[in-house]
Amino acid sequence: MAEATIPAKDVKELRDRTGAGMMDCKNALVEADGVVDKAIEILRVKGQAQAAKRGGRTASEGVIQSYVHATGKIGVLVEINCETDFVARNEDFQEFARDVALHIAAAAPQYVSEDDVPEDERQRELRIFEEQAADKPENVRPKIAEGRLRKWLGEIVLLNQEHVNTDKHSGQTIEDLRAAAASKTGENVVIRRFTRYQLGEE
Amino acid sequence: MAEATIPAKDVKELRDRTGAGMMDCKNALVEADGVVDKAIEILRVKGQAQAAKRGGRTASEGVIQSYVHATGKIGVLVEINCETDFVARNEDFQEFARDVALHIAAAAPQYVSEDDVPEDERQRELRIFEEQAADKPENVRPKIAEGRLRKWLGEIVLLNQEHVNTDKHSGQTIEDLRAAAASKTGENVVIRRFTRYQLGEE
Repeated sequence: MAEATIPAKDVKELRDRTGAGMMDCKNALVEADGVVDKAIEILRVKGQAQAAKRGGRTASEGVIQSYVHATGKIGVLVEINCETDFVARNEDFQEFARDVALHIAAAAPQYVSEDDVPEDERQRELRIFEEQAADKPENVRPKIAEGRLRKWLGEIVLLNQEHVNTDKHSGQTIEDLRAAAASKTGENVVIRRFTRYQLGEE
Repeated sequence: MAEATIPAKDVKELRDRTGAGMMDCKNALVEADGVVDKAIEILRVKGQAQAAKRGGRTASEGVIQSYVHATGKIGVLVEINCETDFVARNEDFQEFARDVALHIAAAAPQYVSEDDVPEDERQRELRIFEEQAADKPENVRPKIAEGRLRKWLGEIVLLNQEHVNTDKHSGQTIEDLRAAAASKTGENVVIRRFTRYQLGEE
């Protein structure tokens, strides 16, 4: 698809949804024949390559962000890292931190990333899903169980969750927002840890 | 000492420092021959008796309080319980919660109460203090080691720490403030748990 035929509003939408640069968005739309969702995939693949390059750089600056729900009965503390104090004070970075804290309060994830899920817990869930699929033909059981495991990980892992504020972040996962923040700031952005308190919980 | 000779300003000071009722303060000052510090001890002994009575009541209401230092590099989340939602919205209770959160940010305690210090950690410290006292006469060593252990517990245990804002809470420990909050609100007040994040710490 020729660059000239890409509507400006699609470029804008792509920028808003990915945080990628103007030219990157145009090029991705050309490569994707103008299909925005495909362009997002293309940008994400490239973004992951960039993030991988950036991953080696130390992210030890950043911000501790808190959020307490208006009732005072749910509170969150989250540490988000970047590479420089300059970016730590950047408004996009701080907005990302606030968005994440609010999301954690509402969605109650259990782990930051899939890597943080203990292997025994993952195996236990997988066994349960395999047993639940016992009435299905044997050859499809592993696939069904794996699908349910993916769904479960999507529910308990922060980076896999879709942001609860769907008006502001329609369909974007926390990982999408993290990648966008990294892209906007040009630094490696890492959600390091979080704590969520709910009043009176065990 | 006769009640009539107790200066009103001493009663007021005692009320401010302990949160006890007017008549309790007067009676304690009479019993203490007008010595404020002694009256505080008397009130504390009585307060503990009252708190012990209250201790049986469930404290499952309360508030989650957060505090993030202006630099954004230190953050605290603390859960403080009381017995009713009415007291949870009480200004004295909420001020206590804010005071505790700010204190934790500055003083970095490791445990809420002495009961939370793991026994093996306590024994390890005690051994170190005993070895440090090896040059002292054998009969005083246990006492010296025990003294150092008390000091160490005063440093790492939240309830034993003096509040960092000495202008507002001169010489009062967090336990003093907690007892005062319980006395002011008439409910059992419990610091249930806290989390303190410092940017980039291990």
